[in-house]
Amino acid sequence: MSDTLTVGKKLVDLCRQGKTHEAMDTLYSPHIVSIEAAGGPNMPARMEGMAAIKGKATWWEENHEVHKAEVEGPFPHGDRFIVRFKYDVTAKAGPMAGKRFTMDEAALYTVKDGKVTHEEFFYTT
Amino acid sequence: MSDTLTVGKKLVDLCRQGKTHEAMDTLYSPHIVSIEAAGGPNMPARMEGMAAIKGKATWWEENHEVHKAEVEGPFPHGDRFIVRFKYDVTAKAGPMAGKRFTMDEAALYTVKDGKVTHEEFFYTT
Repeated sequence: MSDTLTVGKKLVDLCRQGKTHEAMDTLYSPHIVSIEAAGGPNMPARMEGMAAIKGKATWWEENHEVHKAEVEGPFPHGDRFIVRFKYDVTAKAGPMAGKRFTMDEAALYTVKDGKVTHEEFFYTT
Repeated sequence: MSDTLTVGKKLVDLCRQGKTHEAMDTLYSPHIVSIEAAGGPNMPARMEGMAAIKGKATWWEENHEVHKAEVEGPFPHGDRFIVRFKYDVTAKAGPMAGKRFTMDEAALYTVKDGKVTHEEFFYTT
């Protein structure tokens, strides 16, 4: 099995179990680059390095209650793979506090030397 | 609406209607580059130019009976968008003739100057 597919399968398995931090610790390069489809007032679209990416994940987890997560994939192509995510969540804080909504997106990952070096999130803003 | 999202929505609409050739005629650059996750003995992974891409589509249509098509998206990010495809098909010819199977994949499209210049298909081989 290619590195890409191996890494992709592990990432999907861990995301299905909600083990996002374990996925980052074991599968991500320390120089990981994470790029959202859009930035916000408190969140740049592009972040770099394990500390920033884990901070973003922690922020997300602390501010959303997850009712259901659907994770499809990985869909590999060379050194990249795509994963499809659907999250049914309720926001815990901020302008959306108390609102339940669906996050519906695809993510494109790039693998070099067995580690994820880029994650790019695709969605409608 | 961005060029990317406009083109993506039109492409998804036409694919849902099975109007693949109309999608290519109206939305694709004449220099379109199409890259499969894997090539085969009679099909290179990389093809370039409208004639080759339309030939591939014609081959696919003539060799598969489509029972159901699910098309999700577009999921945009900058000048690219992802579309998720699931096809329930029966092969009409070749070693798979008479076999019914699911094609389950994601596609990554790149848009320049309002036209699709690259399509890349992601799937498990």
